[in-house]
Amino acid sequence: MTIKMPIETAIETISSWKSHGGEQLVCRHQSAATGTDMTFSLFLPEGNGPFPLVTYLSGLTCTHANVTEKGEYRAHCARHGLAFLAPDTSPRGDGVADDPAYDLGQGAGFYVDATRAPYARHYRMWRYVTDELPTLVAEEFPLAMKRQGIMGHSMGGHGALTVALRHPGRFQSVSAFAPIVAPSLVPWGDKAFHAYLGSDREAWAAHDAVALIEGGARLPDLLVDVGDADPFLDTELRPELLRAACGKAEIPLTLNLRPGYDHSYYFISTFMAAHLDWHAARLCR
Amino acid sequence: MTIKMPIETAIETISSWKSHGGEQLVCRHQSAATGTDMTFSLFLPEGNGPFPLVTYLSGLTCTHANVTEKGEYRAHCARHGLAFLAPDTSPRGDGVADDPAYDLGQGAGFYVDATRAPYARHYRMWRYVTDELPTLVAEEFPLAMKRQGIMGHSMGGHGALTVALRHPGRFQSVSAFAPIVAPSLVPWGDKAFHAYLGSDREAWAAHDAVALIEGGARLPDLLVDVGDADPFLDTELRPELLRAACGKAEIPLTLNLRPGYDHSYYFISTFMAAHLDWHAARLCR
Repeated sequence: MTIKMPIETAIETISSWKSHGGEQLVCRHQSAATGTDMTFSLFLPEGNGPFPLVTYLSGLTCTHANVTEKGEYRAHCARHGLAFLAPDTSPRGDGVADDPAYDLGQGAGFYVDATRAPYARHYRMWRYVTDELPTLVAEEFPLAMKRQGIMGHSMGGHGALTVALRHPGRFQSVSAFAPIVAPSLVPWGDKAFHAYLGSDREAWAAHDAVALIEGGARLPDLLVDVGDADPFLDTELRPELLRAACGKAEIPLTLNLRPGYDHSYYFISTFMAAHLDWHAARLCR
Repeated sequence: MTIKMPIETAIETISSWKSHGGEQLVCRHQSAATGTDMTFSLFLPEGNGPFPLVTYLSGLTCTHANVTEKGEYRAHCARHGLAFLAPDTSPRGDGVADDPAYDLGQGAGFYVDATRAPYARHYRMWRYVTDELPTLVAEEFPLAMKRQGIMGHSMGGHGALTVALRHPGRFQSVSAFAPIVAPSLVPWGDKAFHAYLGSDREAWAAHDAVALIEGGARLPDLLVDVGDADPFLDTELRPELLRAACGKAEIPLTLNLRPGYDHSYYFISTFMAAHLDWHAARLCR
């Protein structure tokens, strides 16, 4: 299937596979937000829809492909009748600023709109995932956009939490695997926010889940799983800060510390069924 | 976990992840059969075992990693208490004969012991998967080797069928995704058998599932799934030849032609649950 549209919103389906009764698509389009081509994957379950949509934001170094290949979500989306959208983690390409480190530049967009050179030109992942991409997929696919969930892993858990906290009412279900909950306070976030946002701590706070909750932002409830063998647990993830903030804000948080699990897709895929059950319970009523 | 043993059977665990309650291992060892290092993956479910073992043989171009990352088997092995072993598809390395084509040489061992130069030196995948590897894992891991199943995909479906047909009584359950059922009669098999076995048609017949069945080999029963959008269906797979041979031999064959599915892991992962249910019904009684 190739859908031809005016240039600014053309979606090209570059791969399509039947899987678990539905269709796994990989699509490319010219993004006005980033000024680059962007690639995303979308799973549509069997049927005509409209389908409730779960958006999954990926972690450092990932593209759409990691969760698409290793996430084991299709069986559960098919069971519940959920669509599943997986964007890339940054703009990419020869003309796009980059950094040799794995935790900055391409593959590490941190779901912010960068304001600092050289990243400001293309790194506008906030408006991409909050505005351009949902508008585009809502126009092109049979999605029930009033029934939306969001989830993510690590840097993408940070993205899912901050996007949901700053769009009250848009998402009926929110969950995360091993999220970075307070990027302003940990090395990954400190490095990325300095590079993308400069030293303006107010701009940082708008992209820090714990700071947003402390500032009054709310979620209906929240599911988080983290492995206790995750090598980033104490340095980068710090789920105890989320627990404290949610406790004070009276946000019902289900925080599962999973013995023996690490930060990998072997962890994510283990608990994907439970997370999609959580989303379905809130989206498919 | 690293298990130290005398050099000829030393297994080195090069990766280990907790997943779906069990342990996904990737191991390397020096193989006497191939004269090279060989890598395999092994999933052990939660508990102390001994666990019934399903061996999965992969298709052209694959290593152990494809099914390990994309096969979606762990949830179902965990549910049934099955161990899952995935060997590589050929010897590999700088000193190992190869061919630039994807369907010959490294990644394309076809589960035979090659008798022709330059392949005869290392390409002894038959004895590797039928003898050396099962002996090794039986010694090192808590496996119930009297309760074994075998399955495979494409070239690995060919491997699973021929290994099971030539080891009556060893496997209580046999299944395949999109298998090459009559390699002697199709381009992939013709090319590989000429290269590995020369023009000795008797040697070919010993590695041809349809020929083996026609020659009197039997299985208790057999499950096969093939996608009707598989681009190799009519040229390389030819499941109708298997259906005819099983019919004549009165081997109960469940052959599912799946509308819209292709040859990929998006197909395999869709029907992995049903295949592991099939194996469990025969191994976990």
